[in-house]
Amino acid sequence: MIRISSAFDGGNIEVDKAESADDIRLRIRDDKDSNFKQWFYFRLTGAAGQACALNIVNAGEVSYKAGFRDYQACASYDRETWFRVPTSYDDSTLTIAHTPERDSVYYAYFAPYSMERHADLVARIAGRARVSQEVLGATLDGQDLDLLTIGEPGEGKRSIWAIARQHPGETMAEWWMEGWLERLTDPADAVARALRDKAVFHVVANMNPDGSRRGHLRTNAAGTNLNREWAEPTMEKSPEVFVVRERMQATGVDFCLDVHGDEALPHNFVAGFSGIPSLTQRQSKLLERYTKALAAATPDFQTEKGYPKAPKGKANLAMCTNWVAETFGCLAMTLEQPFKDASDHPLAETGWSPERARGLGRACVDALYAVFGGLR
Amino acid sequence: MIRISSAFDGGNIEVDKAESADDIRLRIRDDKDSNFKQWFYFRLTGAAGQACALNIVNAGEVSYKAGFRDYQACASYDRETWFRVPTSYDDSTLTIAHTPERDSVYYAYFAPYSMERHADLVARIAGRARVSQEVLGATLDGQDLDLLTIGEPGEGKRSIWAIARQHPGETMAEWWMEGWLERLTDPADAVARALRDKAVFHVVANMNPDGSRRGHLRTNAAGTNLNREWAEPTMEKSPEVFVVRERMQATGVDFCLDVHGDEALPHNFVAGFSGIPSLTQRQSKLLERYTKALAAATPDFQTEKGYPKAPKGKANLAMCTNWVAETFGCLAMTLEQPFKDASDHPLAETGWSPERARGLGRACVDALYAVFGGLR
Amino acid sequence: MIRISSAFDGGNIEVDKAESADDIRLRIRDDKDSNFKQWFYFRLTGAAGQACALNIVNAGEVSYKAGFRDYQACASYDRETWFRVPTSYDDSTLTIAHTPERDSVYYAYFAPYSMERHADLVARIAGRARVSQEVLGATLDGQDLDLLTIGEPGEGKRSIWAIARQHPGETMAEWWMEGWLERLTDPADAVARALRDKAVFHVVANMNPDGSRRGHLRTNAAGTNLNREWAEPTMEKSPEVFVVRERMQATGVDFCLDVHGDEALPHNFVAGFSGIPSLTQRQSKLLERYTKALAAATPDFQTEKGYPKAPKGKANLAMCTNWVAETFGCLAMTLEQPFKDASDHPLAETGWSPERARGLGRACVDALYAVFGGLR
Amino acid sequence: MIRISSAFDGGNIEVDKAESADDIRLRIRDDKDSNFKQWFYFRLTGAAGQACALNIVNAGEVSYKAGFRDYQACASYDRETWFRVPTSYDDSTLTIAHTPERDSVYYAYFAPYSMERHADLVARIAGRARVSQEVLGATLDGQDLDLLTIGEPGEGKRSIWAIARQHPGETMAEWWMEGWLERLTDPADAVARALRDKAVFHVVANMNPDGSRRGHLRTNAAGTNLNREWAEPTMEKSPEVFVVRERMQATGVDFCLDVHGDEALPHNFVAGFSGIPSLTQRQSKLLERYTKALAAATPDFQTEKGYPKAPKGKANLAMCTNWVAETFGCLAMTLEQPFKDASDHPLAETGWSPERARGLGRACVDALYAVFGGLR
Repeated sequence: MIRISSAFDGGNIEVDKAESADDIRLRIRDDKDSNFKQWFYFRLTGAAGQACALNIVNAGEVSYKAGFRDYQACASYDRETWFRVPTSYDDSTLTIAHTPERDSVYYAYFAPYSMERHADLVARIAGRARVSQEVLGATLDGQDLDLLTIGEPGEGKRSIWAIARQHPGETMAEWWMEGWLERLTDPADAVARALRDKAVFHVVANMNPDGSRRGHLRTNAAGTNLNREWAEPTMEKSPEVFVVRERMQATGVDFCLDVHGDEALPHNFVAGFSGIPSLTQRQSKLLERYTKALAAATPDFQTEKGYPKAPKGKANLAMCTNWVAETFGCLAMTLEQPFKDASDHPLAETGWSPERARGLGRACVDALYAVFGGLR
Repeated sequence: MIRISSAFDGGNIEVDKAESADDIRLRIRDDKDSNFKQWFYFRLTGAAGQACALNIVNAGEVSYKAGFRDYQACASYDRETWFRVPTSYDDSTLTIAHTPERDSVYYAYFAPYSMERHADLVARIAGRARVSQEVLGATLDGQDLDLLTIGEPGEGKRSIWAIARQHPGETMAEWWMEGWLERLTDPADAVARALRDKAVFHVVANMNPDGSRRGHLRTNAAGTNLNREWAEPTMEKSPEVFVVRERMQATGVDFCLDVHGDEALPHNFVAGFSGIPSLTQRQSKLLERYTKALAAATPDFQTEKGYPKAPKGKANLAMCTNWVAETFGCLAMTLEQPFKDASDHPLAETGWSPERARGLGRACVDALYAVFGGLR
Repeated sequence: MIRISSAFDGGNIEVDKAESADDIRLRIRDDKDSNFKQWFYFRLTGAAGQACALNIVNAGEVSYKAGFRDYQACASYDRETWFRVPTSYDDSTLTIAHTPERDSVYYAYFAPYSMERHADLVARIAGRARVSQEVLGATLDGQDLDLLTIGEPGEGKRSIWAIARQHPGETMAEWWMEGWLERLTDPADAVARALRDKAVFHVVANMNPDGSRRGHLRTNAAGTNLNREWAEPTMEKSPEVFVVRERMQATGVDFCLDVHGDEALPHNFVAGFSGIPSLTQRQSKLLERYTKALAAATPDFQTEKGYPKAPKGKANLAMCTNWVAETFGCLAMTLEQPFKDASDHPLAETGWSPERARGLGRACVDALYAVFGGLR
Repeated sequence: MIRISSAFDGGNIEVDKAESADDIRLRIRDDKDSNFKQWFYFRLTGAAGQACALNIVNAGEVSYKAGFRDYQACASYDRETWFRVPTSYDDSTLTIAHTPERDSVYYAYFAPYSMERHADLVARIAGRARVSQEVLGATLDGQDLDLLTIGEPGEGKRSIWAIARQHPGETMAEWWMEGWLERLTDPADAVARALRDKAVFHVVANMNPDGSRRGHLRTNAAGTNLNREWAEPTMEKSPEVFVVRERMQATGVDFCLDVHGDEALPHNFVAGFSGIPSLTQRQSKLLERYTKALAAATPDFQTEKGYPKAPKGKANLAMCTNWVAETFGCLAMTLEQPFKDASDHPLAETGWSPERARGLGRACVDALYAVFGGLR
C-alpha cells in the first residue's frame, strides 16, 4: 500500500490521491501566513519496483515557475546520498517519474537540512579550538538563533560575517555553511590559520529555524520574508533579523556573505550592492576582486550570468546585502547557488548537491584570503 | 546571557526564571491532554564556567516521584556522549548542580532519541539484506508508523515481535532497538544468521512518534497511554496500537518483547503475564527460561527485583504483554530498563546509557537463541 | 602486462610463468629452514577483465593436502573486504579461476593480518582504560613480542591467558583476537566489565611476528614450529615461547586459549588435553562445560567434529595446551578455526572470514563468563 | 624494563645502551651500501612516566647536520597522531627529552608512511572513477612500483606528472600525495573535475619502496640516490627511475612535480631548472606563475627562501626536475617541504605535519588550475 508522508522536520506536501503508483497527485503547501510555495519534501513508502508518477498538481502556482523548468527532483534512500530523478514540467504540473528500488524513498526540492543536523553542526563546530557560541535570541516558535564566533576580538582585526538560509527552503545555503565552517575551524588548514589570526568570523548558519522546520520556501513563522526586513526589523515579525542586525552594529562589518539559493538560474553567482546610495568605487572594486577570485578558485562559480544590476540609488535597503554595504561601507554580497545544476560545469547525476555546496563554501574561504588585505 | 530552550524534537521544559545561573527555575510541561509529566530535555546556553543550579520546581508533581529519588540527570555537550551530573531531590524540587564547560549544554531525563535519528535507523536497517520495511499507518500527527521485517515468511517459521517506546519518554527503549536491529541484520553474526533462517522478525522501533517529538513522558498526541489500549484500541485515540495489533493478528506471535524504561527501579528486569486467564505452565516455563538465559548472557540483567506478579486472572489485558500472551498463548514480556543505573552492576559516570541499552539489545538476541527451540 | 608480486608483509609466492592470464604458474615458498608450506599471499596486476587461471603447481607438496580439497581461495581488491573465488585442486595443482574486475587484486590462503595492523591493534587496545602493555622480549628477527594485560593483579583474581598465531599462516587467529580484545576492553560491555573486576587477562595477539612478516605457514625465523617447544623452549630456537612460558609461570594460569587455524577440517572446534599425565576430572568437566557454553553461544562452533583424543599419558607436552594444563592443572584449550568454512553453518560468499573470526572471539568471552565461577 | 625496537617497516635505530631511561644511547644506521643517514624511527616500551633522555650519539655524522639544528623530534602513541617533543642538538648528539605517558611510544624523524599504508592508498585511489593503476616494474627488492593514472588519454590533453619520495626518508612527500590524490579523484571537487577533463595525471606516490621499507634516508636497495640517476638510469642500480623515465617518454610531460623534503630549511619552497641548457623564457615565466599561484593559495608556501639558482647550463641533468624540463621543454619543479616547521607560518605543537602536507597537496592542485591554460 502506498503511503506518502511529510510530517517531519522540513516536510512539505499534501496528498490529493495516492491509490496507484502511476497516478499520485500531490500539492505543495503554502508557507504559513503567506502564499509563497515551492519547497517540497516527502517520503514515499510501499512503491518499490513500481513505476511511479508523482504529480505536483499545483506546480503552476509556485513562487518561481521558471524554477521548475529544466529541473530534476532530488531523491534519496539512505537520507545521506541524494541523486536526481527524471522530472518534467508543463507549467502547471511537475511530474517526477521514478521507479524506487527500495521500500521507502525521500523526494525533495533540494537535499534537506534538518534542525537536528543544524544542532549537530553547531555542537561540532562549537567544540573546536578558538570557537565560541551564543544564542542571539529566540525565534517566534521559540527556537534558538545560534551565532558561532571563530577567533577572538582584537585590535585591528577584520569583522567577517556570513549568514545563510534567510529563505529556509534554500537548504544549499546551510550545506555551504558546512564547507565554510569546517574549513575555517580546521586546526591545520593554512589559509584558515592565517585568517583566524587577523579576523573574527561571525556566522549564523541558519537565519530561519522556524521556516526550516515548518518546511517553508521563503518565510519565517509569521510569514515574513526576512530578506526584506533589514531596513526596519521588528521583534514581532522578524526577530531573527533584529538580533543579527543589532550584533552587526556592535561588531562592525568588513565583509558579509548572505548565502542563498536561486530557483531559476542554473549558476552560482553573486549579487552585489550596485544600487546603494553611498556606493564607493572602493566597494565596487572589492566586489569585482572577490568575484574574480572566487571564479579563479572554482569553476563551479562564474561572473557572467546573474541578476541585473540596480542603478545607483535604486537599491532595496531592506535586503541584507544592500543594508550592510550601505551601513558599513564594506563589501557585502548575496551568494546564489542553483537548485538545478551549475550549467557551466554540469554534473548530471547529482546536479548541484550538498558536496558541491560544501566545496563552494571552502572555495569562498580561498577567495576571502585573496582579497583580505584590501578589506579595510 | 543565559538562554534555555526546548523548542526542538523531544524537548520539554518551561522557564520560570533564568536571570542568574545559580537560581534557574524550570517546570516540566504536562503531556498534552493528560497530566503525566517527568520527561525533560532542554539546552542551556551562556553559562560556561558558571556554577549552575537548575531547579525543576514542579518535580513534586511528576508521575513517579520515586523516579527522582537517587537520580542523576543526563548531560551532553556534543549530543552524542551523555554523562551524569550531580542531582538532588527533596520530593518537591529536582536540582541539577553543574558547571558547564562549554557555551551550550543539553540536559535530559535520559539520552534523547530524535525522530530524525529514528528515520536514519529505519533507513539504515531497511537497506540491509533480507529486510523489508512498511508504514503500518499514520499517527494522529500524521507521522509514519514504521515496521521493519527481517527474514522472509515461510512454512514453520517463528514469528518474533519486538516493539519499543509505547511510552515515548522511555528513550532507552529505542537505544535498545539499535542493538537488537544492528545485530539481527549483521550479515556475519552467527546467532543472527541462525535465527534469520528460522524466524521472521517484526520490529516497531518506535510505537509513539507523536509523543516522542512532542517531548511526552507517556502518551501520544491524544493524551492516550498506549499501553492501556491493547484490549480495544481505536483509530481515534490509539491508532498506533490498532494497526500493530491488526498486524500481529495477521502474522501470529510466538515471542514478543515490549521494551520500556522504569522511572523508579534501578534494575533491568522483565515483567511477565502471570495474571492472564489462560496462563499455561508452558508459558511460565518459557518465561523462566528466557529470563534466566538473559541473566546468564549479561550481568546488567537480573531476575530478583521487579514488579510484583499479578495473581492468575487479575492481569490487565489492556497491556501489550498480557494481551499478546493471552491472545497467542505465547511468551510475551515487558522489558524494563532503568532511567537511573543498573545498581547490581553500576557504572557511575554514565549510569544506564545508550551504549548499555544497545548491549542489552544484543544480549536479548542471545537469550532468544537460547530458548528458541521451545517457542512453539 | 601481468605482474605478480609478494614482496610485502606476509607475502608468499614464486612465479614460474606469467606471460598469459590463462596459464599463470606459481609456487609456494617453503618456510625458512623447514619444508612447511601452504600459506600464499600475492598481488596480481594487469589482468582486469581477463579470465585468469592461477595454477599453484607445487600444491601437491604442501603440508596439508587435505587443506586444499574443497577449498576456495580468498581475494580482495580493497585490502579490507575479502571474498572467495572459484578454486579447484587435483592433489597436485591448486587452480584459482577468476576474472578480476580491477587492475590489481590480492589473493591469499586466508585474509592476511600484517604486522602494521598488529601494531595498530596493540596501540589501540593499549590506549584503553585498565590496559597495560609490555614487550616480553625480542624475536630472532628483532621484532617486539607484545603482551597486553587487561585488569590489575589482585587477591583472588583469576589469571586468564590467550595467545594466537604460534603458526603465523593461521591469520584467523589474530582476527579472532580483534573480537576478544575489543570486547574485553569495551567500557560499556556488561560481561567484560564483570570479568575485568575478577580476572587479569594476559594476551599475546601474535606469538610469531617473524613468521608472520616472512609469509610462513608454521614456523618462526629459525624454522621452529613453536607449538612443539613448550616442554623445553630455548632463546636460540624459540624465544617467543621461552618468554611467554616464563611469564605464565610468574602469573599462574587459570584458563588458557591457544588460538589456531586448521587447514583440513571445515569446523570450529576445540582440542583439549585428554592425554596429559595428571588429568583430573575437574579439568575434563571444565573443558566440557566451556565447549558446551561456546556451542550454545554461537552456531559457528560445534563439539562433534575435531581431532581424536589422545589417551591419558600420551599427550605431547611440547604443545602449549598440554603443557599449560599439565603445569597449572587448569583449563587449557587449542581453539581451531577453519581456513575453509564452518560447514555446519556455511556462508558461501566469504567462507570463514575476519568478521566471523571476530564474532567467535566475542562469543569466547561469553563462554568464559559462563564457566568463570568454576575455574579455580 | 626498557625496550627499543626498529624491526618494522621503515624502522631505523641501533641501541648502544638502554639500561636506564635517563641515559639511552642510540645510533642511526647507514643506508645500505652508502653512508647516508639521518632518518630514524623506533619504538620505546617500558618507560611510561619516566623522564627519558634518548641520545642519538652519531648525530654528528648525519648527512645534513643543519637538519638537526633547531629540530624537534616527532612522537606518537597511537600511530596516527604525531606531535613534537623537546629535542636538542650540540652538533654531535641529538637528545630527545621526553616523559612518555603510555607504555609504548614511537619516535621518528618525521611521521612515517609504511608500505602497508602505501598499498592501502593505491587500492583506495585505484577504486575510484576514472582511475587506472599499473605496475611499472619491480624494485631491486622485488616490490611493485605503482603508477596511478587519473583521466583518460585524449587529443590535446595535457600530461601532468607527480612523483614522490625518491628519497624515502622524506615521508612528507607521500603524505603530500594523499592530498594530491584524494582531491584529484574527488567526484564532486570542481577544480578536480575541470582538470580531469583536460589532462591525464600520472602519479607515482612512492618512487622508492625499497628504501622506504628499509628505513633509508636517501637511497634504494642498491645504495643509489635515485635523484642523481635521471641522465642514465640502469635496471641494475636504479630501475625505479628507468621505468618511470621510459613512461614519461611515452606520455610526454607538460608539468612535473617531484616532491621532496628538505632537512635543513624550515620552509616550503620550489626548486626549478634555471641551469638547464635549453631554458626558455616561457618556462621561466611558467615557473614564476606557478610558485606565485601556490604562494597565493597557501601561506604555508613561500617564494623567498630556497636553494640558490644554478646559472644557465650548470644544471645537473641527472636530477629529475632538470632532466624533465630539459627533455620536454616544460614546467618541472622540485617541491621541498620541511622536516622542521614552515617557519613563516609556524605551528609549534605539530611542526610540519601529515595534515599540513596533505593541505599543501590540495593547494598544489589549485596552483596547477591557475596556470593550466599556459602549460603548452
